[in-house]
Amino acid sequence: MPATAAMAEREDGEIIEHHVDEEMEKKLPRRLLEGLAPSDREGPGSTQSSHRLLAYSDALLSIIATVMILPVAHTKFHDDEELKESIQLLLTTKVGVYLMTFLIVTVAWAAHIRLFQVIERIDDCLALLNLACMMIITFLPYTFSLMATFPDHIMGLLLFCGCVMVIGLIQSIIVVYGFSRPFLLNSQIQISENQAFYKRHILKVIMRVPVVCLFASIFSFVFFQLSYVILAVVVFLPYISQCLSWCRTKLFGRPAEEAPDSLLFYTYHPNEPLSKERVEAFSDGVYAIVATLLILDICEDNVPDPGTVQRQFNGSLTAALQVYGPEFLAYFGSFATVGLLWFVHHSLFLHVTKATRSMGLLNTFSLAFVGGLPLAYELTHEFPRNSHNELEAVQTSCVIIFFAGIFQLAIWVVALFSERETLHPYVRYGGPDHTFMLAKLSLYPCVALATFFLTCILSQFSAPIFHLMEITVPFAFLLLRLLVRVAMAVLRALFRPATAIEDDEDSRLPFNDLVT
Amino acid sequence: MPATAAMAEREDGEIIEHHVDEEMEKKLPRRLLEGLAPSDREGPGSTQSSHRLLAYSDALLSIIATVMILPVAHTKFHDDEELKESIQLLLTTKVGVYLMTFLIVTVAWAAHIRLFQVIERIDDCLALLNLACMMIITFLPYTFSLMATFPDHIMGLLLFCGCVMVIGLIQSIIVVYGFSRPFLLNSQIQISENQAFYKRHILKVIMRVPVVCLFASIFSFVFFQLSYVILAVVVFLPYISQCLSWCRTKLFGRPAEEAPDSLLFYTYHPNEPLSKERVEAFSDGVYAIVATLLILDICEDNVPDPGTVQRQFNGSLTAALQVYGPEFLAYFGSFATVGLLWFVHHSLFLHVTKATRSMGLLNTFSLAFVGGLPLAYELTHEFPRNSHNELEAVQTSCVIIFFAGIFQLAIWVVALFSERETLHPYVRYGGPDHTFMLAKLSLYPCVALATFFLTCILSQFSAPIFHLMEITVPFAFLLLRLLVRVAMAVLRALFRPATAIEDDEDSRLPFNDLVT
Repeated sequence: MPATAAMAEREDGEIIEHHVDEEMEKKLPRRLLEGLAPSDREGPGSTQSSHRLLAYSDALLSIIATVMILPVAHTKFHDDEELKESIQLLLTTKVGVYLMTFLIVTVAWAAHIRLFQVIERIDDCLALLNLACMMIITFLPYTFSLMATFPDHIMGLLLFCGCVMVIGLIQSIIVVYGFSRPFLLNSQIQISENQAFYKRHILKVIMRVPVVCLFASIFSFVFFQLSYVILAVVVFLPYISQCLSWCRTKLFGRPAEEAPDSLLFYTYHPNEPLSKERVEAFSDGVYAIVATLLILDICEDNVPDPGTVQRQFNGSLTAALQVYGPEFLAYFGSFATVGLLWFVHHSLFLHVTKATRSMGLLNTFSLAFVGGLPLAYELTHEFPRNSHNELEAVQTSCVIIFFAGIFQLAIWVVALFSERETLHPYVRYGGPDHTFMLAKLSLYPCVALATFFLTCILSQFSAPIFHLMEITVPFAFLLLRLLVRVAMAVLRALFRPATAIEDDEDSRLPFNDLVT
Repeated sequence: MPATAAMAEREDGEIIEHHVDEEMEKKLPRRLLEGLAPSDREGPGSTQSSHRLLAYSDALLSIIATVMILPVAHTKFHDDEELKESIQLLLTTKVGVYLMTFLIVTVAWAAHIRLFQVIERIDDCLALLNLACMMIITFLPYTFSLMATFPDHIMGLLLFCGCVMVIGLIQSIIVVYGFSRPFLLNSQIQISENQAFYKRHILKVIMRVPVVCLFASIFSFVFFQLSYVILAVVVFLPYISQCLSWCRTKLFGRPAEEAPDSLLFYTYHPNEPLSKERVEAFSDGVYAIVATLLILDICEDNVPDPGTVQRQFNGSLTAALQVYGPEFLAYFGSFATVGLLWFVHHSLFLHVTKATRSMGLLNTFSLAFVGGLPLAYELTHEFPRNSHNELEAVQTSCVIIFFAGIFQLAIWVVALFSERETLHPYVRYGGPDHTFMLAKLSLYPCVALATFFLTCILSQFSAPIFHLMEITVPFAFLLLRLLVRVAMAVLRALFRPATAIEDDEDSRLPFNDLVT
């Protein structure tokens, strides 16, 4: 049953041929079509599925989300200074800007998903409006750089607010345009009696942010510190209102439903559906950019100068390239780690049938850590052997890998809480692939944790331990199915004689029994 | 009919749920399953659709294909030197490296498409092998940089040959692995009697390249100039052999078929199918990277230093940012142009039902020019007004836009030659959207050509003309449907009284009538 539903959803997301939407137009209530002038229903060639437009938007947004890691990565360290000071300097500005950009872009991305879950089909006009919207969004990282460099100047703040207001305006135009041509809308809304209510509700949600930004930009002339607070509130507004309404429900019982029929989108519930296809596309983009970040630098900076080779290395190119050895190692190491984290993500989402808002949020956290990986890897190979800096760099890498992995695991745990809706039967609690999936997801966090503590104890061997980890993990993934089987067999052999198998199963109650 | 066929193909490309592949396994000839030990058929959870793996690979490959434009873009021009000299310097090395990388990566990408058109389902092992393959491919641009910087040194050549040999080896392992588990294969091959023949043929095609590279690397120790020639031959080998076989067919008539039943893949025919989904994904990746290339630089380089602002601009951030004005203009200009070229590409492929190899090739040429756009745009805003350099930069931009657009138009023309197979009825010759599509595709080439000649005549107004072009083109796209209708009405009004409409239709015979 869920499989067929998922299939239908997927077909929906695909490009539907023109004769299909002619059929759709026929199926529409007559009242809708009567409201349109003949010139508005422009023949069969004018509307298209939004599939590829969304894929392109996801690609753009994932690049923009990760772009601010570049200034962090390009900060040069000197061997003589302690890593600690450099890291503190980094943490205060550049890493902050990176995380802020990542957060804001993912918020914009989530808003974009919501918008195009309501408007399912596009025409040329909507495609061009969307491109204009993307152009403004891609400019946001720069406004953050300005804010971070000139925190006392209102220029960055004003630019940011201006961009957000323009984005809100374009999104409102898209909504108004979409509702004026109902055949572009989600089929659920298309057949609904409450289109006007939906339109008002969605416009209200969309316009909330630009209006607050307008206030923030006006306030910035008076007392600009307050503007930063207002902007922070905007970002976390859905969470705050969600939290408040949850408290209210707990205190005063369930409130009366405002909507005549429940609206599926723009609810900001943790279980609000988030297009699984788009979560995958965005994640793929981030993983791909991050995996190749280092080669971008290597291609540009690590080609030795012919003159230098002649003078310093007596014309021996091999000797000159050996200087760059650590950079190449860092590249292959980070590519492999990012690739394997993608592999785990891919395995996880293969078993997910529906993505929810909370899963999307955890995914964002995981991706934010993934973005820092190349930087950490570059650092691990940059310092002299057995220095204090090297140890810290190795440990930072472990911490980043750990968090990237643990948030992936958290996605799965959240999915298990409503496994009937979100997971494929094979990986649900008790399913045949449950243990294997758990092993896949916990491999990186476990290994990272183990490496971290090993390097704490054997600090003079930190680099060899780290390299060993890099080399063994891919093979562990290759042999994981075998390893899990062996481990399960051993566990079974250990517990069966003591007849402890019932206790074991009791202590690991299925999550859904606890919740539902 | 073609619509339903296309639908079926698309569903095929999607993630198929596990119970579906259980069914597939049941459908397989018994003989295949008997050949496998029980341990080889590892339960239902072990195979997956390759959809997302391919999307991720496309993202990686599109980044790598365009990455070598960065060294070109980062070449600093000085106002005092003539652009001509700088461009000549660029053309000889960096642009050459960029185009070579683009060519090689797209060749590797086409090989990757072929491979995964044969192997349609994957398991964890194949996913990991593919990631290893990607890691080596992403290293190729660096070997080109080395070759370009040290043309007399065999180091770059050896590294390149080494990478290609490893890639060939991994691809062969993937093929052998795929054929050992036939349920991973394309259904056409799966039910075929000639699996052994297919396997041999595909392995022969794949191994041809690494073997030639092995020879090239051995030759490089003796006479390295020859190695470059050998490598060039490798890249163009399919075209050469295609050309030779075409000549042979023309001279001696059709040769006897070697294969018992015709093989659909690995034929290197111009009509060989190329997964449309992957052509779109790769193009989306390239357009997205190229659109955001300038913002990467802007975020890193164009944030003024607080000290400089204090000293040079008396603390006025606005004045300091005005210095960077041209860079922002260049960013928005190039984003809009790349976005609109994407929009045209998107419109075109919406009407394409099947992509062929020749269309893929033309698409690659178009993308290679698109990659140069941000650089050209940056140049147009970098030089002082009315200088000779500015004129040349504007004209270079026009030439690049022209070629990017004309190759998109060429894709459509090639598609029209076999329109029954490749195009949707609505845009075929005589279809209602034919003229509109033609107008969309020819807008950019026409505008670029017009701007080029206008700047030749009115050379002192080159920048204003270019800016006017940038601003009007998006509106032209918005109003295109209207403009085309007006133009058609005018044409009809002009020709109808003279009863020249029959002549007009006669002179524009449908392509398919000419060909078939």
